[in-house]
Amino acid sequence: RVNGERLWASLMELAQIGATPKGGVCRLALTDLDRQGRDLVTRWAREAGMGVTIDKIGNGFMRRAGRNNQLPPIMTGSHIDTQPTGGKFDGNYGVLAGIEVVRTLNAHGIETEAPIEVAFWTNEEGSRFVPVMMGSGVFAKAFTLEHAYAATDTEGRTVRGELERIGYIGEQEPGEHPIGAYFETHIEQGPVLEDNDKTIGVVSGVLGIRWYDCTVTGMEAHAGPTPMALRKDALQVASQLMQEVVACARRHRPHGRGTVGMVQVHPNSRNVIPGRVKFSIDLRNATCADCDSMDQDIRAVAARLSAETGLPIGIDLVSSYPAQCFHSDCVDAVRRAAAKLGYPHMPVVSGAGHDAVYMARLAPAGMVFIPCKDGISHNEIEDAKPEHITAGCNVLLHAMLERARV
Amino acid sequence: RVNGERLWASLMELAQIGATPKGGVCRLALTDLDRQGRDLVTRWAREAGMGVTIDKIGNGFMRRAGRNNQLPPIMTGSHIDTQPTGGKFDGNYGVLAGIEVVRTLNAHGIETEAPIEVAFWTNEEGSRFVPVMMGSGVFAKAFTLEHAYAATDTEGRTVRGELERIGYIGEQEPGEHPIGAYFETHIEQGPVLEDNDKTIGVVSGVLGIRWYDCTVTGMEAHAGPTPMALRKDALQVASQLMQEVVACARRHRPHGRGTVGMVQVHPNSRNVIPGRVKFSIDLRNATCADCDSMDQDIRAVAARLSAETGLPIGIDLVSSYPAQCFHSDCVDAVRRAAAKLGYPHMPVVSGAGHDAVYMARLAPAGMVFIPCKDGISHNEIEDAKPEHITAGCNVLLHAMLERARV
Ligand SMILES: NC(=O)NCCC(=O)O
Ligand SMILES: NC(=O)NCCC(=O)O
Repeated sequence: RVNGERLWASLMELAQIGATPKGGVCRLALTDLDRQGRDLVTRWAREAGMGVTIDKIGNGFMRRAGRNNQLPPIMTGSHIDTQPTGGKFDGNYGVLAGIEVVRTLNAHGIETEAPIEVAFWTNEEGSRFVPVMMGSGVFAKAFTLEHAYAATDTEGRTVRGELERIGYIGEQEPGEHPIGAYFETHIEQGPVLEDNDKTIGVVSGVLGIRWYDCTVTGMEAHAGPTPMALRKDALQVASQLMQEVVACARRHRPHGRGTVGMVQVHPNSRNVIPGRVKFSIDLRNATCADCDSMDQDIRAVAARLSAETGLPIGIDLVSSYPAQCFHSDCVDAVRRAAAKLGYPHMPVVSGAGHDAVYMARLAPAGMVFIPCKDGISHNEIEDAKPEHITAGCNVLLHAMLERARV
Repeated sequence: RVNGERLWASLMELAQIGATPKGGVCRLALTDLDRQGRDLVTRWAREAGMGVTIDKIGNGFMRRAGRNNQLPPIMTGSHIDTQPTGGKFDGNYGVLAGIEVVRTLNAHGIETEAPIEVAFWTNEEGSRFVPVMMGSGVFAKAFTLEHAYAATDTEGRTVRGELERIGYIGEQEPGEHPIGAYFETHIEQGPVLEDNDKTIGVVSGVLGIRWYDCTVTGMEAHAGPTPMALRKDALQVASQLMQEVVACARRHRPHGRGTVGMVQVHPNSRNVIPGRVKFSIDLRNATCADCDSMDQDIRAVAARLSAETGLPIGIDLVSSYPAQCFHSDCVDAVRRAAAKLGYPHMPVVSGAGHDAVYMARLAPAGMVFIPCKDGISHNEIEDAKPEHITAGCNVLLHAMLERARV
């Protein structure tokens, strides 16, 4: 079993770097604070006897040798960058749980057949540089290194320049690094485990995500002198479509999700009928076929609304992440570990994207979820219980040992 | 009959001051451009033999003497300040139509029993300084001079300071100025006359206006991992209520108007379920009882929505302008003038507030509307036909002469 107090202490120490007054963390990718975080984590890894490799996109691989170093490593990991008003656990937990697994093996003098590796992936959050899950995406060849290098923050600084500046641009070609299996522990970022009073979520896969920009075009007019019957009110049509986004998700149970998170009204004046409304749509579901079905559904509804009202509605797909099932070997390894350790557990899907999604394209992969308070993350008040932190790490340990063979 | 070409030429000359590249005018209240506009208009008034008085809030009164100067003047007017992206006609037409009436009387050597006055009211638009219809509001004692003086623009400059700076702070106490009757010509700012192919709108009154701020409070959560059934999505509830604002207006035919013009979503991020949505509601109707009924209706709907969803909804009244009927003597004078001159005309209500609303509290008042292109105003593409500009001014001339007695 892992040392839960040591793991908790490491989490709290890392959370000092970029700590916010409200108890959260602001450690944006490739900032000086990110460098300090990386320096601390790699120092801990070296103290645990691990070798450290950095690749060209700044992903870090911390390796504990096995008996047979020709075998591909059994890997775990996550990210240490945070949202601007992020918490202490998102990502950080997955990396430090990996370090704790190695510390535990060291403490008990346990050797594994395959090497063990702990990875931290560059810029998972995507807050400072788009796209999200950048490091693992380049590693899995979802997009090119050049594309990632060219990404800029709001002040025009590039990923490449910032990697060089903080000294984390390595020699290794991303992806030229074999993986035997990949596990990632993460807080759930949702309320399902808490709601069901379970300690461990055995993650079967990750929902596919479709991001759209939607624009309804009407005609600006004065709110007073324009009779109701002669209006082309873009917000009235947009707000109907916003309702339909949720209705579409409900028509696609059990995994359908539909969210409008961002709205921009033009000209946004109290006594002017809106002439144009732009808003985001986020649709998710468990299979690509289900995502396609939601796509067709919302486009059909928009076409009907547009025909009924005479107002043009544009729906543009801006990003798409395919649904990803995890490998049954890894899912089973997580379930068996949770059962053996006596933790209440349940199968769950991940509604959010994670680095594990890209790893699953390269090797058998799986994830371990633990509850977070009120399901809240991407928030300074994000919180998790020490006993859940420990439990998730114990499950990781046993799942990895099953795959790495003692 | 007035000289339509002279009136059009004056409108185009005034529109040069603050002209925008797109053919509109930006002449915000109490700026240097407003001073230049006031200087030009008062120069024209003096050239037409009128005396000019300025009051303490910067309202201007341009007077042509009558045979009996003990009689209260028959007044017309409007404003010459504009929206930031305003047009050439809104307000400006009402002031220059008044000057054209005097020029016409001069040209024909016509004397009137009562004096004729043309007023320009300070800051009708309310774009730079709140509240709207400031000069006429102080004049009618709807609020105090001190309240108006203290209003600041976004850079902290006060109305009093700016009045002094541009040299338009007068001696006369606002309101200490008798009025026999008040007429105002204005573009309709709506599509009704155009839709009905009429040249003149005989305005029977002005709708009451209620402005509200509405806030729906939910709980921010991640759009991916939060199942539909466990959400507190503030935007879903807000968008239902936005639909209800229009439904409420439709339940209050024929004059009910309901508009949501301004929306603010928090935190406004693509993959975060909105935790709070704030939006404006603009309700209008022809009587105070109808406005009260709409107020009760929308509050009842909000209470039901809040009970159904469990999300708190706050509705705060931020401004209220009572409905105002115009005096039958003035309304009839306008109708008779339109009929006598052979212009196609119809009764209309004004959906927008005007300085005439405040004048109606002090004296018999009425308004003359003419069509504007596509019902568009508060826009640089605001447009009106020269023949309609001329027709409205002819109606004004005859209605004023009926009251001032030749
Ligand atoms: N884990 C996480 O927050 N991923 C961001 C992408 C998303 O799922 O919205
Ligand atoms: N005429 C005009 O635009 N008034 C502004 C106040 C309003 O009616 O919304």
